[in-house]
Amino acid sequence: MKSQYIPKATIQRLALYVQVLEEFKRDGVEIVSSERLANSCSVNPSQIRKDLAYFGEFGVRGVGYYVNDLIDSVKRSLGIDRVWKAVLVGVGNLGRALLNHNEFKRRGFHIVAAFDCDPFKIGEEVSGLEVMCSKRLREFSQDIEIGIITTPPDRAQRAANHLIDAGIAGILNFAPTRITAPDNVFVEYVDFFHHIYSLAFNITLSQNKESGN
Amino acid sequence: MKSQYIPKATIQRLALYVQVLEEFKRDGVEIVSSERLANSCSVNPSQIRKDLAYFGEFGVRGVGYYVNDLIDSVKRSLGIDRVWKAVLVGVGNLGRALLNHNEFKRRGFHIVAAFDCDPFKIGEEVSGLEVMCSKRLREFSQDIEIGIITTPPDRAQRAANHLIDAGIAGILNFAPTRITAPDNVFVEYVDFFHHIYSLAFNITLSQNKESGN
Repeated sequence: MKSQYIPKATIQRLALYVQVLEEFKRDGVEIVSSERLANSCSVNPSQIRKDLAYFGEFGVRGVGYYVNDLIDSVKRSLGIDRVWKAVLVGVGNLGRALLNHNEFKRRGFHIVAAFDCDPFKIGEEVSGLEVMCSKRLREFSQDIEIGIITTPPDRAQRAANHLIDAGIAGILNFAPTRITAPDNVFVEYVDFFHHIYSLAFNITLSQNKESGN
Repeated sequence: MKSQYIPKATIQRLALYVQVLEEFKRDGVEIVSSERLANSCSVNPSQIRKDLAYFGEFGVRGVGYYVNDLIDSVKRSLGIDRVWKAVLVGVGNLGRALLNHNEFKRRGFHIVAAFDCDPFKIGEEVSGLEVMCSKRLREFSQDIEIGIITTPPDRAQRAANHLIDAGIAGILNFAPTRITAPDNVFVEYVDFFHHIYSLAFNITLSQNKESGN
């Protein structure tokens, strides 16, 4: 890797590039021009070149990118060319949906245990995993790197604390609330409502424009 | 509203401010300093002031923001001070979880119909809604503004086409794939994998730093 500091926006776009490239691969595309890749990602070609430049030299002038090679390089750059072990806390509707979501495993993220503090859920089997009491998280501390939180908002911090005690390196929080964690634990938020608010706002703006307000 | 062009990042942060402000409200906080609000949102106070300035003048020097007033103003600015009618296409695990997710209704987004093309799902009742064939989407065209896609990736474009035919104004796409839509239809992507890739990448970087690579 050429540089240690990579902007967050670049990382998010790289994740998008991988996804779009994997669709090209699935469709049998072997070489893609930077214009076509850019178009499919809704960014401009110079942005793609700039983002990839953090990781090395890619693409052949006048030819484009070799799809397979670029997927491998970006995955290696992002650290997603290996298996990551994750646990999930909060076996409600969303938690169950994620446990059954086979894209996680397909993309190398294996959910190896599921936790909930509801005594009625403990012992239940969901997607091949036995739901365990959240207090048992520490038993998995040797094994896990990522914790997924799908509890209601008011239980998210407690779930985070259990994960932090177990020595987790990163948290993916689906609960619509902020959580606090020490500096050495990375937290990412998946918040549907940010996106639906953006939609509502853009629709409102365009309706105002149409009606001349 | 003072200005028509609002950066996308500002809109996303406004959505975050609303969420954090609503937590303050729930905790009985009536006035919050810009420092405390900024801290809870992990941004700096000048960013908040700059973002809010697009919509008018808020806050009282030396006092801070009145929580209730600011929630109302930001919601009005974002167009989320009213009920939005939505439909969902794709009644799999994730679709079911979202249909049962009471935060949507609580925040003013009412899912009024659910669609799936699987004949075994059609007629089934999920969260009080009868699952209908996607072809029937047009019957709802007078009524709906937002379409939520929770199909597998290879069916997302078809779902989008049905929604676009029904005259939808915006699409919230949970399927991990890009979709194409005309310019007057807004599309937002909720992609867990962008976030989990970011986590993996940040963990990898910090592990490399620790081991001196």
